[in-house]
Amino acid sequence: MASSRLLVETTRGASVESRHLGSIAVADAEGRLVVEIGDVERPVFSRSSVKALQALPLIESGAADRYGFSEEELALACGSHGGEPEHVETAAGALARLGLDADALECGAHWPLSGSAARALAAAGQAPSRLHNCCSGKHAGFLCLACARGDDIAGYLALDHPVQQAVRSAVAETTGHDLSTAPVGVDGCGAPTYALPLRAIALGFARFGSGLGLPPARAEAARRLMRASWSSPSMIGGARRFDTETMRALPERAFVKSGAEGVYVAALPELGLGVAVKIDDGAERAAEAAMAATLIRLLRPDGAAAEGLAGRARRPLFSYSDEPVGEIRMAEGAFG
Amino acid sequence: MASSRLLVETTRGASVESRHLGSIAVADAEGRLVVEIGDVERPVFSRSSVKALQALPLIESGAADRYGFSEEELALACGSHGGEPEHVETAAGALARLGLDADALECGAHWPLSGSAARALAAAGQAPSRLHNCCSGKHAGFLCLACARGDDIAGYLALDHPVQQAVRSAVAETTGHDLSTAPVGVDGCGAPTYALPLRAIALGFARFGSGLGLPPARAEAARRLMRASWSSPSMIGGARRFDTETMRALPERAFVKSGAEGVYVAALPELGLGVAVKIDDGAERAAEAAMAATLIRLLRPDGAAAEGLAGRARRPLFSYSDEPVGEIRMAEGAFG
Repeated sequence: MASSRLLVETTRGASVESRHLGSIAVADAEGRLVVEIGDVERPVFSRSSVKALQALPLIESGAADRYGFSEEELALACGSHGGEPEHVETAAGALARLGLDADALECGAHWPLSGSAARALAAAGQAPSRLHNCCSGKHAGFLCLACARGDDIAGYLALDHPVQQAVRSAVAETTGHDLSTAPVGVDGCGAPTYALPLRAIALGFARFGSGLGLPPARAEAARRLMRASWSSPSMIGGARRFDTETMRALPERAFVKSGAEGVYVAALPELGLGVAVKIDDGAERAAEAAMAATLIRLLRPDGAAAEGLAGRARRPLFSYSDEPVGEIRMAEGAFG
Repeated sequence: MASSRLLVETTRGASVESRHLGSIAVADAEGRLVVEIGDVERPVFSRSSVKALQALPLIESGAADRYGFSEEELALACGSHGGEPEHVETAAGALARLGLDADALECGAHWPLSGSAARALAAAGQAPSRLHNCCSGKHAGFLCLACARGDDIAGYLALDHPVQQAVRSAVAETTGHDLSTAPVGVDGCGAPTYALPLRAIALGFARFGSGLGLPPARAEAARRLMRASWSSPSMIGGARRFDTETMRALPERAFVKSGAEGVYVAALPELGLGVAVKIDDGAERAAEAAMAATLIRLLRPDGAAAEGLAGRARRPLFSYSDEPVGEIRMAEGAFG
């Protein structure tokens, strides 16, 4: 069986300080592997990386249209936001369309992922609400689907709730991977999360990006979620976030999304390819570097997009006095 | 050559989600390895884990006594604090003894490591100063040594400044490792940091804890720094920090200190042993689990200390709704 490979290292001075192992799969819509680094068969909890697949039923069912979800609200359903004011307002707005408020969310509350947003909230004398949870947009989407279906909204995160069954089917069908026997866990936001091979996740995003191999309504739903994300990239993450910055720099060319514990995915419509990265130790800094380096190789961007990706694939590290002290970079030979 | 070993894993549901490789060295004061897991010869940047060794000249030179440094101020010189109000006040107090203020610090400013301290600072409408830098206590110690020696205090972080030469000699002599040819880098606080084998770091802390193999004045200085840390453990880290909690639970039995990028050290005076851990990927969560598991095996504590360590060696993970979702734990067979 293949093993994870050394993908990313950090340096200090002239020496390597830390090392990240991981795997990368790039697949086309028929599941052919264009890039296969490390172990692409070991099941990986997809976490928030598959939010866009989880949002497909929200569109396909007509729920989003019935309640008039905006582009921003659709993008937020695909995102893991920083809890910045625009994210909180957008989540609240989506819930208001359903006649609901933050009390309906079952995701729990936490301080905003964005340090500056957290400090601004504290400075305003406020505590975080469930709207600040980085998954509040996805949960608003879950609730929208429940409302449109006429389901009981309480307990919408349960494995056997019709919303979670619809979401699971969409992910299973798009990735071509049977989730009924896949390892299942509970995500930080309380939603079920499944473990599936990187190869299957990459296939899912190849189909998501190209529409190839999807029923027409699902292909159109995927297209709409990507358009929403490209038109409102700040809803996917937030200020200074890699997925947000990359989609802002490469609209139409790259849909990119982070997941917790070192997972990153991308859909590249023009190439008909999907990308899935897992860093074994869960480090986001390494997942970003690996995804950035992969996107550079596949898309060969120029201008500001190239600079942005290069700055993540090889990111300088500074002391607190802004002295350069090292870097985070793809390990030599990581791509074989 | 030995390779790093799987030390720590995180789980979600019934499955392993992420994996951390690393190495552990436990040595006595003559350098005999009692525990040797992974690669204990590869140079590792010791970062903040060796602050207590770096503080030896502060005591031995008489500088700390000349300026009347308190126990809290000595402990803070060995610590990487959370930027809580008591830390900031203590750092400011130490500088005041020298007739200096925060402007003399060359460590740069950053928001407090403690999230709640950072939010409290923001809520008070303030920005972080250099006193909030987690290394401000160490830097106050450097300045104290410079003042006592009559050195120019500007540029006290330069490799060839007399303070850094004294500090380097103390670390080299205590660890028995020649630092003149060791890889050197710049730490986040601007101070030089050297890479040396875990074996040497463990030896250094075996000597530090037991006094064995040290000149009498150095052994007494080490004893004094440990006493200061046990009497003011909150100065070593802060609220909910592993090193602080462990020293609070095991005074006289364990001096414990974190370093950035997955480094952790301990001195166990009663056993005459030193411990050094490096997690390859730099993850603090894994370094804590590995150190906790190692301390349990070596010290066999009972009561609250045992509970505290067990809770770090195998730490439950919760969703934002406080549902248990997995754990961080030592991998089976990690100790061979």
